[in-house]
Amino acid sequence: MRLILVAGTTRTAEIEGITAAGASRDLLVHTPSADSEILAYGDTVRAPVTPVSPGGCPTPAVVTRAVRELLGFDAAVVDAGLATPTGAPTVSVGARPGADIREPDPVRTAPGAFAAAREFGRALPDDRIVVGETIPGGTTTAMAVLRALGEDALPATSSSLPENPVDLKERVVAAAFESSEIDPGQAAHTPELAVRFVGDPVLAVAAGLVTGALESGTEVVLGGGTQLLAVAALVRHAGVPAPATLATTPYLAADVPDLAPAADTLDLDLTVADPGFDAPAAGPLSAYADGVAKEGAGMGGALHLAAEAGRLGVVREATRTVLDRVTGDGDRSTGVSDDVPIDDPEADDGP
Amino acid sequence: MRLILVAGTTRTAEIEGITAAGASRDLLVHTPSADSEILAYGDTVRAPVTPVSPGGCPTPAVVTRAVRELLGFDAAVVDAGLATPTGAPTVSVGARPGADIREPDPVRTAPGAFAAAREFGRALPDDRIVVGETIPGGTTTAMAVLRALGEDALPATSSSLPENPVDLKERVVAAAFESSEIDPGQAAHTPELAVRFVGDPVLAVAAGLVTGALESGTEVVLGGGTQLLAVAALVRHAGVPAPATLATTPYLAADVPDLAPAADTLDLDLTVADPGFDAPAAGPLSAYADGVAKEGAGMGGALHLAAEAGRLGVVREATRTVLDRVTGDGDRSTGVSDDVPIDDPEADDGP
Repeated sequence: MRLILVAGTTRTAEIEGITAAGASRDLLVHTPSADSEILAYGDTVRAPVTPVSPGGCPTPAVVTRAVRELLGFDAAVVDAGLATPTGAPTVSVGARPGADIREPDPVRTAPGAFAAAREFGRALPDDRIVVGETIPGGTTTAMAVLRALGEDALPATSSSLPENPVDLKERVVAAAFESSEIDPGQAAHTPELAVRFVGDPVLAVAAGLVTGALESGTEVVLGGGTQLLAVAALVRHAGVPAPATLATTPYLAADVPDLAPAADTLDLDLTVADPGFDAPAAGPLSAYADGVAKEGAGMGGALHLAAEAGRLGVVREATRTVLDRVTGDGDRSTGVSDDVPIDDPEADDGP
Repeated sequence: MRLILVAGTTRTAEIEGITAAGASRDLLVHTPSADSEILAYGDTVRAPVTPVSPGGCPTPAVVTRAVRELLGFDAAVVDAGLATPTGAPTVSVGARPGADIREPDPVRTAPGAFAAAREFGRALPDDRIVVGETIPGGTTTAMAVLRALGEDALPATSSSLPENPVDLKERVVAAAFESSEIDPGQAAHTPELAVRFVGDPVLAVAAGLVTGALESGTEVVLGGGTQLLAVAALVRHAGVPAPATLATTPYLAADVPDLAPAADTLDLDLTVADPGFDAPAAGPLSAYADGVAKEGAGMGGALHLAAEAGRLGVVREATRTVLDRVTGDGDRSTGVSDDVPIDDPEADDGP
């Protein structure tokens, strides 16, 4: 078993008001790199900040890491267009950061990255993988990709913000189709084109990875919400019918009432595990239950693993421990500046 | 605790007769990528072959992986100039493949990679790291680096071949100094220049990593032989006096009688753990005891961890299991061709 975090960026995230996956627009670009480090090391290493929402909700990566510390499973990060250096080890599949989907050809590397990720997914020796994502702005690109596939009936309405800016997303998606070579529904059965023209590199890589893994008989758990639903739709449009599991959080499930029928349509077994972050003892974790950062960085998949192992009841405590660590080491934890040095510059004077 | 494999290449390895870290010269370039995959996944993923010596001795990476499967420790790979794609997740520090050291400036990226690896080593949150290397031809570049530092008294004479080609190495090292800007002893206290002009990118990155880790108070175990001894010398020449451990195999220790005093000189606590590969039950593992591939890919460090955990007695069996796996999946295991497809090319036809 291995949890694979697909981490990347799209400049779509820079549109004012579209995402909460970072304390400010300047810091968003570091979120996937920092999430990757938190998964790999339990703390940030090169990333200058621990990702928090503007209101202070910590990144879901701390939950995924906490479950990893409880269960000890293997993890890997695939570079799906990281825009800043990460200290986490990453697998390369040739993806580059995605441009704003309102540009004509925002993810040129998508077809190549899809193919390379598919090969990688086929070659993985694991019996089972859990796939998560981290990409600010990713729900908007997921919405556009579902439109491109003609899967308008599937829900694409969740958000890392308590008040989902649906109108803004609709305008962005409409502008994406206006500028691109494809119309809604025109990328049916050509998932690479959907992600290339109106998607993001994380959708391309995650879809390729899952396609390859299912093709080679690997069991796949999609750990996430509407973005992973879009990944499943891409996999189906790649012609792969093998069933998979969609494991998400209760906060995401509550936000997307149509999730169950959508999962059913895509032949996904939907599972929801509740870590009890709405309890008084949850402290800062209650922000998840309040509807901020409802899902991400494989959180739903990790909770599913914890539930399977009968350890769901200790996830809250373990998450507090990780959270104290990632926010407890001085300036790196403030999340309010992107130029905080990661160590003492005086010590740079080598011989 | 984390085992960090520093993986890279030098074209010095292409000199006929200089290394056994691959079945043929054409396959040498894949060895570090394959070793990285075996450590990460327990099998090759993208690499076309499982590394074996010309006589069929399996890569020491299978031993390191076997111990990892026994103990469950974290691992990471740092890309110190890989020349072929690896499916293993890797940390980037800006290293590029090294040229033949008989060229004037074979490792231009060395100073930058040393500095980036040092930052990374400082920032790592682990209490303890075990550092290993995989780079065919690395004992020759290590010899040259010790000369450049003026550490001629330190032994640099082990090899992955039963009959160490010392004369050939001496000629290569002499040619390296002839073509470069530095003379023997001239890089004392400037380790970056030693690795740049007569070294390899793995020495640069491993030395930077260990320097940074020791500077930040992390305990360091150097898992290897004479190449890790050269790393320690570079760290001392970087002005870092903190003690560390050198953990090696009995096969390497038997081959380098001066290892103990050398370790003492560098303030390294030498430790040797014997996995009993000379027993009749060891089967193909007896090739290690016979003097082929005596050390590498962190093997000595992994054995040290197994001994600490009281599990040394089961390493042989665990290694056989990994070995059967990596050599048991069809054409990929033959080690005699570098153009074996890693999966069915028919299946490449996406929608």
